[in-house]
Amino acid sequence: MTRGADAGAGERSLVLEAFAPYLINRISARYSADMAEALRLHGLTTPKMRALAVLAVRPGITVNECAVYAVMEQSTMSRTLDAMQEAGLVDRHPREGDGRVREVFLTPAGEAAFARVWPIMLAAEERMLDGIALAEREAFIATLGKVLRNIRKHPF
Amino acid sequence: MTRGADAGAGERSLVLEAFAPYLINRISARYSADMAEALRLHGLTTPKMRALAVLAVRPGITVNECAVYAVMEQSTMSRTLDAMQEAGLVDRHPREGDGRVREVFLTPAGEAAFARVWPIMLAAEERMLDGIALAEREAFIATLGKVLRNIRKHPF
Repeated sequence: MTRGADAGAGERSLVLEAFAPYLINRISARYSADMAEALRLHGLTTPKMRALAVLAVRPGITVNECAVYAVMEQSTMSRTLDAMQEAGLVDRHPREGDGRVREVFLTPAGEAAFARVWPIMLAAEERMLDGIALAEREAFIATLGKVLRNIRKHPF
Repeated sequence: MTRGADAGAGERSLVLEAFAPYLINRISARYSADMAEALRLHGLTTPKMRALAVLAVRPGITVNECAVYAVMEQSTMSRTLDAMQEAGLVDRHPREGDGRVREVFLTPAGEAAFARVWPIMLAAEERMLDGIALAEREAFIATLGKVLRNIRKHPF
């Protein structure tokens, strides 16, 4: 199976099932497609779900920070938050002590919307980790954290 | 930090750093952006790199199978392989015993192109796994494999 990879590929040959980036990309793409489908059934979109989740746990962050956490372009996040503000789900206030910075928060309606999204997110994670024991899950999360710290460009 | 998530979110509250889909999506997006940048410096694209890698280890698969392994739309993979065939990197033959199926292979020039791409892929993986000991890497790969089997739609 590794014929081509062996031909001049150097010391180690490529085995797809043992190549971490391959596995991570396939999992990420499948999860995102499944989640988009589940959200559509609830009249939601991925950007909105991510904004609700990120703001639920990081109240008061800026639009830029929200885009990084949500793994979205800043312009997309900005438009998403504009629409959510019009729908009464988020609000923005100048930061105390630095009025140039605008902090984003969920409104009570936004928190209620997150409470409806969170079970969908939890169910998707549970499907992903089905049959994996707690200790293995914890080790997995710990390694994922190390990998993110290795490659992220932002300090968070 | 979990104020919003605690509000009506049920038994478990969202902690971003402990939520596997969040970590996987962030890692995947960062890795893909970094890889696209590294490939651009070598005059390559992500679809072409993925096709070279997949065909190096799975010679004789179909266009559809190649698209699944490469995590790409079938139409994108089809166009990519057309361009690669014109460039002399891949070739297609009818499958022995079932001429309706067309198998895709790397040509010697395609294998040479993969041999140039593979060190870039290895270096990106190494950066991702930097500082993580072998036993932890192996456990991580094993869990990623379980997760992919949990959520994939194709039998491979």
